[in-house]
Formats: sequence, C-alpha cells, structure tokens
Amino acid sequence: MKLKLSIAYDGTPFAGWQSQAAGDAVQDVIERALQKISGGRIVLHGSGRTDAGVHALEQCAHFDGEGPLSPNDWQRALNANLPPTVRILQAEEAAADFHARFDAKGKIYRYVVRNAPVLSPHEVDRVWHVPHDLNFEWLHDAAKIFEGRHDFAAFSANRGGTVRDTHRTVREVSVSQDGTLLTLTFEGEGFLYKMVRMMAGAAVRAALGREDVESLRRRLVGPGPRWNHVAPACGLYLVKVLY
Amino acid sequence: MKLKLSIAYDGTPFAGWQSQAAGDAVQDVIERALQKISGGRIVLHGSGRTDAGVHALEQCAHFDGEGPLSPNDWQRALNANLPPTVRILQAEEAAADFHARFDAKGKIYRYVVRNAPVLSPHEVDRVWHVPHDLNFEWLHDAAKIFEGRHDFAAFSANRGGTVRDTHRTVREVSVSQDGTLLTLTFEGEGFLYKMVRMMAGAAVRAALGREDVESLRRRLVGPGPRWNHVAPACGLYLVKVLY
Repeated sequence: MKLKLSIAYDGTPFAGWQSQAAGDAVQDVIERALQKISGGRIVLHGSGRTDAGVHALEQCAHFDGEGPLSPNDWQRALNANLPPTVRILQAEEAAADFHARFDAKGKIYRYVVRNAPVLSPHEVDRVWHVPHDLNFEWLHDAAKIFEGRHDFAAFSANRGGTVRDTHRTVREVSVSQDGTLLTLTFEGEGFLYKMVRMMAGAAVRAALGREDVESLRRRLVGPGPRWNHVAPACGLYLVKVLY
Repeated sequence: MKLKLSIAYDGTPFAGWQSQAAGDAVQDVIERALQKISGGRIVLHGSGRTDAGVHALEQCAHFDGEGPLSPNDWQRALNANLPPTVRILQAEEAAADFHARFDAKGKIYRYVVRNAPVLSPHEVDRVWHVPHDLNFEWLHDAAKIFEGRHDFAAFSANRGGTVRDTHRTVREVSVSQDGTLLTLTFEGEGFLYKMVRMMAGAAVRAALGREDVESLRRRLVGPGPRWNHVAPACGLYLVKVLY
C-alpha cells in the first residue's frame, strides 16, 4: 500500500529535511522509525527539501508500506517512535502512482518576523528577530514585486549549478501585521534553493530603508549581482504542499 | 540605585528560578550577568520561586546597582550577557525600600493544556498535552471550586514543613477555550509549593471524568489525603507579579 504522510516538524535540532550521512535530518529520523516498525529498509520520498533550521507545519512524503498495518496504525506507530519535534499529523492511503515530489502542484511558505526591541524567550528559533523599526508599507511593496513569473537567478543560491532554468512563478505574496509580528506568505509552483529566504531578506532590507524597491525590481529583469541577504532559517515555515 | 527588573524566561533549560549549587537556575544566570557587568557580586531578589520547567512571561526581581549605569543601560547590558531564553523586558528605578518578594500583592499564573490527539512539534515543552477528550464544563466547574479562601493543605506539596499556615486566597479562576487550547488562569495573593499545578491537575482529572467535583471540594474543607496528580511544569506560566 502506498502511504502519504502529512508531517510537522520543529527544524531547530535537524540538519534539514534531506537525509544526511550523519543521520541527523528529518528524513533520517522518520526512516529509522519506519525501519523499526517494519523490520526492513523503507525509503521515504519527500515533496522537497527544507534547510537546516527551517520548520514545517505540513510537509508531505510518501512510502511503500508492506504488511497488515492500516494508515492509522502507521501514524500511531510512527509517532510512538519519533521524537516530539517530529509529528505525523495524518497518514492516508494514496493512489499506487502517487509521488510526493512529482505530483506537487505548488507550495506555501510563510516567513515570520518579530519587529520589537526585545525578543520573547518563547520565540527563540521560531521567528527572525529584527529589533530596528521596519516600515510596513515598504515591506509590503518590496515583497509584492516577486509576484508573477520571473527569472529568480539573482534570488537563489546556486547548488552546484544543477538547476538550469531559474524561471519560477510566484502565484501570490501576502503580507500581514499583527502587532509587532510581521508575516510574509509566498505561494508558488516551486521555489529555488534559498529563494524564499532571499525574498524575505530583500523585503526586510527594503522595510529598513536600506534598499529601494526599484533596485530590487531591476534584479528580477536584468542580469544583476546575486542578492546576498538571506533571512535566517528559523523564521521560515513550509505551510503546505499543494496537490 | 535600587532596580526593579521585569523578566521573561523559557523554563525548559533551567533548574527553576531559585539559585542552585550547580548554577543552573534562572537566578544564577542573571546573577552571573550582573557580576560580569558590575565586576562585583550582586544578589538578585525574586518575587518568589518557580519550579524547573515552569515559564515566566513577567517575573519580577530587584537588586542594588552601584555605579553610573541607568536602568536602560542595565537592561541592554543584561540582555547582551544573558542567553536568549532569559530576557529583561524592562528595568526601572524602584523606591529605596522596594522588595520584590515582600511588596508583592499577588500573582497571576496561567496553565495551558492542548487537548488534541497529536501535539504540534512547536508546542513541545510549552503546554501540557492531554490527548484524551476533556469535558470543558467539568474543567470549568472543577477549577472554580478553588476560588476564595481555603485551606490548601491537600493541594500543596510539603517542602520540609516550613509553611505552617496553609490557608490562601485565590481571588479569581478563569477558564477559557480556543479551539483545542484550554487555559486556566489563577489570580491569588500567593500560592503554596506546587499548588497551581495541583489545582490544574485536579481540574483536568475532573474534565476526564476520573474525579468528581464534590470529592475535590471535600478536600478543601476537611482533612483529607493529599492530592497527588500534579500537572507537568511545562504547561505553567507565571504571567505577572502584582504590586
């Protein structure tokens, strides 16, 4: 039976989603739990990577599960064998040809900034703490330039030059403010390596008055220097994978 | 100059508020920062203890600060020398005879329960996870019996028999529900050792249908066996000290 998992994790203690030689990625701890339950090696296929320190409210992954366990059995057994920083929110049977990565139609990411002089101890590793005054309108206007189809070459990190086409479509960017908590939400068909953190970093630099919106826009249209202000991983959440 | 500090902390990594031989209490880390800043030994007087793992949104403490530093200077210097799990929210000059413990007129504590089958990784160590169905009305009715002046002998742990009078006044108990998040708020002139966690544990046991409200009430009026269901420390927050 092919199983689809919805997975939440606190990215702080992990070396990202994707399996590492050191065994300290989220994928590694779930694969170890799968092995413990099934007795054999099971490969887990995620919808895509998240970096070290990045959180997930609902990452998706699939695996082929043999034996008599129902989806609910798998969920319970996995949660009993995982650290509390990784939780299986749901397990369900998927179509035989379902693939968590190739079938994904899009993703929603959220970037969270606390704009206050002092950061609450309860938000450490969960938001980006920006103590200097941000201009909300500038944050909004800068974030909005990323909407649409653009060449995001300047707003992505090159991972060994494996990605040739750097065009992507960002379907919607929304920006909201709740007291001193600022939230940027990005929905797109897919994102390049570090792209969301670079867009968030650009919007915050604009909101600080250190970059103007037009110069950011120029990087999206012409060849220009790579953007080098990457917002910290701890403020980023993979909200949902769209199928 | 006498200084009054408002302090927030994540209780998870600490052995409680009060100074320990191992130096791993919140008071210890703040006193080390004070010593680093001032060059001499400064004793910090808190409004009272919190147990290992208990959090504070606003604990209060005072110390005598010599030298030229203003309250704002102290705040900045302390935050620069403290781990991010402890933050000075405010430092202000207090009357020469102010005492954080003896002048406290009351305290507000909050106990937070997540009543859902699966606990979010982002709430680990921050709430008490109760996966079984709770009855909100029973929770409310049980928590409300603690309002007023009672002998809380049965709802407190004996710390070497140092407290002789176990009567206390709980001014107000409020119970609220926000989706699957249940919050109990206790305001009182003062609380005995483990008293808030015992009241929260009693209310949750009643909400699970494992204890009836009348049998809880009887423990408040007559001599009865000590209550032995102490709610976990991680769900408890010292919200405010009242002066």
